[in-house]
Amino acid sequence: MGVAVEELDAAIALYEKQFEMPLVHRETVAAFGVEAVLFDVGESHVELISPLDSESGVAKFLAKNGPGLHHVAYAVDDIDAALEKLAAAGIDRIDQEPRTGIRESRVAFLHPRSTGGVLTEIVEPAGGH
Amino acid sequence: MGVAVEELDAAIALYEKQFEMPLVHRETVAAFGVEAVLFDVGESHVELISPLDSESGVAKFLAKNGPGLHHVAYAVDDIDAALEKLAAAGIDRIDQEPRTGIRESRVAFLHPRSTGGVLTEIVEPAGGH
Repeated sequence: MGVAVEELDAAIALYEKQFEMPLVHRETVAAFGVEAVLFDVGESHVELISPLDSESGVAKFLAKNGPGLHHVAYAVDDIDAALEKLAAAGIDRIDQEPRTGIRESRVAFLHPRSTGGVLTEIVEPAGGH
Repeated sequence: MGVAVEELDAAIALYEKQFEMPLVHRETVAAFGVEAVLFDVGESHVELISPLDSESGVAKFLAKNGPGLHHVAYAVDDIDAALEKLAAAGIDRIDQEPRTGIRESRVAFLHPRSTGGVLTEIVEPAGGH
């Protein structure tokens, strides 16, 4: 689950101190124009994303909606096979080809008009994550 | 993760057929004025929620935002202890006392103004879930 935040450090304090989730990673993800952190929740993660500049998609989301739920991400073993299958099923996507996401993962976003209004990301994690 | 949907059966088809998630539960949750279904995703769930009438909170969400991400839910072992701890930390909540949620769970919603704009639910599952 990805959450758009305006002030990363204040948001980190909420998840670390009040929700007691361990922070496991922090990274500037240039391709998406964000600084992002990951917290472990069971075998899932909460990702907080904060824009690096006003041109990033997350900056535009924040300007329109304010902070809050931004997207959901599902892990797959083979993102190329998954994208092919989804395309065959008529699911529109934002990314025609996978891009590099957090922790060297390969990621692609599906279009909310094909996914019930939910910005949906599929992620092929790099080895070890 | 809870997703607000307008047409439950169409949304179920997306998650079952395209995303290949197993549907594990379907229930009318009277206290929240919704019909809900659960899909397994690893050890987490996607919950689709559809309003039973125009007075339910989800109906109001849909009227304002359209379908999409509605809330996130975290499981806890002891909801009373968790609420006490969150209250001591100054986190506002919508439900002062736990209510009965899906599959006989005990649930309470925290207020988005205290949780970075994210409608956040804590859930003490009933035995077995």
